Amino acid sequence: STSKLPHIGTTIFTKMSQLAHEHQAINLSQGFPNYSPDPVLLEEVSKALHNGKNQYAPLQGIFSLRETLCHKLNTLYGSDYQPKTDITLTAGATQAIFTAISAFIKAEDEVIVFKPAYDCYEPAIELYGGKPVLIQMQAPSYKIDWEEVAAKISSKTKMIIINSPHNPSGKVLQQKDLEQLQQLVEGTNILILSDEVYEHLVYDDQKHYSVAHFPKLAERSFITYSFGKTFHVTGWKLGYCVAPKAMMKEFNKVHQYNVFCVNHPMQVAINSYLQEEKHYMQLGDFYQQKRDYFLSLIKDSRLELTPSEGTYFQAASYKNISQEKDTVFALRLIKEKGLATIPISVFNKDQQDDHMLRFCFAKKDETLKAAAKIINTL
Amino acid sequence: STSKLPHIGTTIFTKMSQLAHEHQAINLSQGFPNYSPDPVLLEEVSKALHNGKNQYAPLQGIFSLRETLCHKLNTLYGSDYQPKTDITLTAGATQAIFTAISAFIKAEDEVIVFKPAYDCYEPAIELYGGKPVLIQMQAPSYKIDWEEVAAKISSKTKMIIINSPHNPSGKVLQQKDLEQLQQLVEGTNILILSDEVYEHLVYDDQKHYSVAHFPKLAERSFITYSFGKTFHVTGWKLGYCVAPKAMMKEFNKVHQYNVFCVNHPMQVAINSYLQEEKHYMQLGDFYQQKRDYFLSLIKDSRLELTPSEGTYFQAASYKNISQEKDTVFALRLIKEKGLATIPISVFNKDQQDDHMLRFCFAKKDETLKAAAKIINTL
Ligand SMILES: CSCCC(=O)C(=O)O
Ligand SMILES: CSCCC(=O)C(=O)O
Repeated sequence: STSKLPHIGTTIFTKMSQLAHEHQAINLSQGFPNYSPDPVLLEEVSKALHNGKNQYAPLQGIFSLRETLCHKLNTLYGSDYQPKTDITLTAGATQAIFTAISAFIKAEDEVIVFKPAYDCYEPAIELYGGKPVLIQMQAPSYKIDWEEVAAKISSKTKMIIINSPHNPSGKVLQQKDLEQLQQLVEGTNILILSDEVYEHLVYDDQKHYSVAHFPKLAERSFITYSFGKTFHVTGWKLGYCVAPKAMMKEFNKVHQYNVFCVNHPMQVAINSYLQEEKHYMQLGDFYQQKRDYFLSLIKDSRLELTPSEGTYFQAASYKNISQEKDTVFALRLIKEKGLATIPISVFNKDQQDDHMLRFCFAKKDETLKAAAKIINTL
Repeated sequence: STSKLPHIGTTIFTKMSQLAHEHQAINLSQGFPNYSPDPVLLEEVSKALHNGKNQYAPLQGIFSLRETLCHKLNTLYGSDYQPKTDITLTAGATQAIFTAISAFIKAEDEVIVFKPAYDCYEPAIELYGGKPVLIQMQAPSYKIDWEEVAAKISSKTKMIIINSPHNPSGKVLQQKDLEQLQQLVEGTNILILSDEVYEHLVYDDQKHYSVAHFPKLAERSFITYSFGKTFHVTGWKLGYCVAPKAMMKEFNKVHQYNVFCVNHPMQVAINSYLQEEKHYMQLGDFYQQKRDYFLSLIKDSRLELTPSEGTYFQAASYKNISQEKDTVFALRLIKEKGLATIPISVFNKDQQDDHMLRFCFAKKDETLKAAAKIINTL
């Protein structure tokens, strides 16, 4: 049998975490925290398990959690999402992204993807015979060139995927970026898929501009969110997707036959936990401290740092240290120095190599300290 | 935007459970138990949550659980599945089925589906432009006519989907069925997708013949299993898929971009729980008691029962009671009598109506008693 995805190998995150494990390296590669979630949240799960919440949830998710989430979004972003029709709980943001693409992308459809990009968008598009139209954002500013976007939009453009705060660069889109996007899509049938899993992780004087905040964008947008990123539980595989009713109707047709519904007791637990705003509103401060601590430790290193405005990633150029390809340099860093990172070229168009690495700082202070010790010897 | 699945509505299970809720009816429709899982299993989850198992699992699942499951299958069915390459944990059997179809079905491919069939196969095939080739098994024997299968196999046949023990009929395939299937596919490139989520639920002198038991079938088969069905936790959304290495390689390409991986703490818990064989080997006895109890309660009713050889479903004809269409009769049963069931025509080819209903007997004795009281007045 011939492969439907012949050029797809194993995701970089699996490769790097495996190598980190083999070489007992400090792992700043795959994006996950190495500390525990709040014990209060764990208690809520135990409660739900013992309260008989172990059978199928409704396919969109339990209603109380959908209410809580719509209320949260509507309060934060001035949107008007309705719990009955505009939201579905998913097996992580990844399944939300896959399902949104599955529900709408057909053979020959074009989807605009900004590179560097998280690696799950393109394979999903290709699985349906769609064509990713790649636009490279150039390091180190990683700005979107909206004129290039205008030039790449065609009658076949079905969807534009955006991601802010941005993985892997740590950049945050500005109000004017979203206004430009709005101008470009107005009057067209182009859909937006907005990956906002790091919504609460913005630093300094930055602000997260959600697509939900722009009615003329929201009316055509799927927005995906993640509890894994928000509550330090990437292994629970829970997230959600919002969109206008007509779009969610198509989304749910696929969702119900892809996973049917998602983990019930954990939905109950998360709903209880979300009742206290501080459980998510203090997350920005927590990660700003992490970022600042990491930066203070490596301020004298030879890396050139790209400002990390959001996410839990720090991008950096090592061109003062080596001229090796980033995949080669990253491999040597694991094997010889005991530090795992992500070479950013794997996310770029045509694997463009800017000698950049991505470091995940969602790690215990002691881990960041040990990593910095290695970084400072480079 | 035009719909990719224009004829797909909301799954019957959602509809019926919602109606049951609205009319406060006894719910024997959607297939889930209304009793709790073993407290020992719940304790294992709490332990895993507090043991720091809250971040991403490996994409195929944790290795120890893959080892346990391969060992279990190899012991029960004489197969030779390797934990490194031949198994992936999934967000329920539904996601395993969806992913197997996603990884292989292309436009114009034909997939043979036996009707009545669980409702997730056809939409997934259609999403990829494949063509379900439907073969109706006739009530009440629900036997597969292998000559019809031979006649329907063409050069475009890419996959055959089988399901035993069978939902909704409760029939179990016999050794000679699998031998017939083997003869038909030998020398072709046809893949098999074998949905065996009710593997442990077989009654009387019946035996479950897994595809894993037939090397010449196993070499071309995806087999899907469910912890939800096995451990009374349909709401945890955990299952798994086995297949030969080369097939799983393609499966994992889709899996990693559909969900990436599945719930980590619950994988850890299930692995501990599976160490005691009795936790799954006594399941057949448990459900045989349920079935026998239900049958004893309704033995004098006017229903004509199809032998339930496996699954937790009882199929029955009501043609001695009414000549109404089964969808009409089932609706009236909810609204006027307070009992929810599944009208089997929704699973049949061209909605063929045999005046059959499906009853789920995975319910507390008191629930079955209350349901029987209604059934006996019909
Ligand atoms: C699903 S593994 C990747 C986790 C992540 O978001 C990242 O490292 O970018
Ligand atoms: C995913 S809801 C359906 C559950 C089930 O297996 C059935 O009722 O047949």
